[in-house]
Amino acid sequence: MVVYIGVIGERICDETTRPVAEKVGRLLAESGAILVCGGMGGVMEAASRGAMLAKGVTLGILPGFSREEGNPYLGFSVITGMGEGRNIILVRSCDTIIAIGGSYGTLSEIALAHKLNIPVVGIDTWSLKRKGQIDNKIIEASDENEAVTTALELAHKTKRR
Amino acid sequence: MVVYIGVIGERICDETTRPVAEKVGRLLAESGAILVCGGMGGVMEAASRGAMLAKGVTLGILPGFSREEGNPYLGFSVITGMGEGRNIILVRSCDTIIAIGGSYGTLSEIALAHKLNIPVVGIDTWSLKRKGQIDNKIIEASDENEAVTTALELAHKTKRR
Amino acid sequence: MVVYIGVIGERICDETTRPVAEKVGRLLAESGAILVCGGMGGVMEAASRGAMLAKGVTLGILPGFSREEGNPYLGFSVITGMGEGRNIILVRSCDTIIAIGGSYGTLSEIALAHKLNIPVVGIDTWSLKRKGQIDNKIIEASDENEAVTTALELAHKTKRR
Amino acid sequence: MVVYIGVIGERICDETTRPVAEKVGRLLAESGAILVCGGMGGVMEAASRGAMLAKGVTLGILPGFSREEGNPYLGFSVITGMGEGRNIILVRSCDTIIAIGGSYGTLSEIALAHKLNIPVVGIDTWSLKRKGQIDNKIIEASDENEAVTTALELAHKTKRR
Repeated sequence: MVVYIGVIGERICDETTRPVAEKVGRLLAESGAILVCGGMGGVMEAASRGAMLAKGVTLGILPGFSREEGNPYLGFSVITGMGEGRNIILVRSCDTIIAIGGSYGTLSEIALAHKLNIPVVGIDTWSLKRKGQIDNKIIEASDENEAVTTALELAHKTKRR
Repeated sequence: MVVYIGVIGERICDETTRPVAEKVGRLLAESGAILVCGGMGGVMEAASRGAMLAKGVTLGILPGFSREEGNPYLGFSVITGMGEGRNIILVRSCDTIIAIGGSYGTLSEIALAHKLNIPVVGIDTWSLKRKGQIDNKIIEASDENEAVTTALELAHKTKRR
Repeated sequence: MVVYIGVIGERICDETTRPVAEKVGRLLAESGAILVCGGMGGVMEAASRGAMLAKGVTLGILPGFSREEGNPYLGFSVITGMGEGRNIILVRSCDTIIAIGGSYGTLSEIALAHKLNIPVVGIDTWSLKRKGQIDNKIIEASDENEAVTTALELAHKTKRR
Repeated sequence: MVVYIGVIGERICDETTRPVAEKVGRLLAESGAILVCGGMGGVMEAASRGAMLAKGVTLGILPGFSREEGNPYLGFSVITGMGEGRNIILVRSCDTIIAIGGSYGTLSEIALAHKLNIPVVGIDTWSLKRKGQIDNKIIEASDENEAVTTALELAHKTKRR
């Protein structure tokens, strides 16, 4: 059974984060998973690059009005024209999500995934407290291998839909 | 200048939170603000009730397919049929947002508001750390009066759009 | 029972169409209906103007990112940021729709309304053939009074939702 | 340059239409185009089937909440949870669209494509009059070969985006 794994993170990423995202993309491609992302730069581009160089399938859910604005490592792309309104579509389309670092857009996707009970594995990402209590719903991974292994296991286990 | 203030929070709320939401709704109505919410139960209903009993205007952005599913205290409502996809529409439509408690749907709205630079005032809501660093973008208020006063000030100050 | 009546048509309208839209808006306001529209210029603006001058309620479902882009006769507005993706939200939010003239955006709204079984009353608008057969689902009205009377009757009759 | 060609039509199709849709799907696959559709039954399923049997790529933009509701011939799918709100996403994602027969959902997609200046080639589909004048924007094709050839030519010609 093929699985759809989202990789989410910032549009602009630093030199520490880039190789992490690229390795996650590569590992996902090697596993045969479809990599879903927001289609833009930064973490999205690095993960797509890693996947595409490993002959994987990458699917970008673009916020804007044009396929050309997507990063060059998307095998396929969908043009929503809905800005951040595309985040929910990205999230719904995934069996599991890997969050790498990330800013507020990423946080919105983590929250939407939590709401929909789609597992989120995090690498150096947000941590959350709700009314003063720690919320542990993000599954923290210590490195790329652990993140991908966990995400794949959860995706296969979940017969959510 | 009329302002649009969002009130966000859970669909089911406890007896501590309900009167807080209701008072926030009342104070917003008394200020002449338009209260925007997700239109459903819990915090949304309590805030709408508070506002409507004070003769305020309430606007619900409904997730489903029917106006009847909205709470009974909506002056006006919009039917999106987009589920959680309506959160971005709610957020975009507000000048400031007041978050009261809240679960993951609320967190997604906080994050989207942060992304769009729409100020969020929080009462006993989420607190966030990003890559281990505290993120203070939610403006914490100690009570309903402070939350509403702050939200109104920020809404009037911001000539965001 | 308050009803929501949509008025749809082009962003730019000629001098023949403008007074028609304005009169439709006025008649709706006098009936106590809430006028829903796409919030922009042309037919939308003329109908909103007619309604607002008659002290009616007007609700604009805006395609863009800013309340300021709406026409000046909107009592309330919602900011979707979804471009033409807002058409379905406009349509879903109405009990009946009045189409005045109109271009392709209007046609998409007529079609979506037909799909959702929301009645459409037309004044000098599209006519349709499907696989060579005339499709009569648009209820043609000969003038503003007939359009508004028909739309109100259908809205009250339909307990669609 | 790879092109994205939409195939739109009814969820339930008769035995005359089914082989037409299937042949269009096959021809698109043989040309190397990516077939985009709404992912459900009827014309969408027949076209996807034709393409998949010819080893083509098919991409379904699903209206609901689950990948399983899609037809079995989708290589990839996106889950929007937006009902008919997904029509605009389907349309935006295509370089050209082929309409085969079709009901109101199809008509809404034709109209949205016209609005966005995305060419629509029709096989036995809607015909339109606007304020009494024939509207010829749908390019009528007499058979599957003509439809696919025209759609491909237009897709390659258009440097729309």
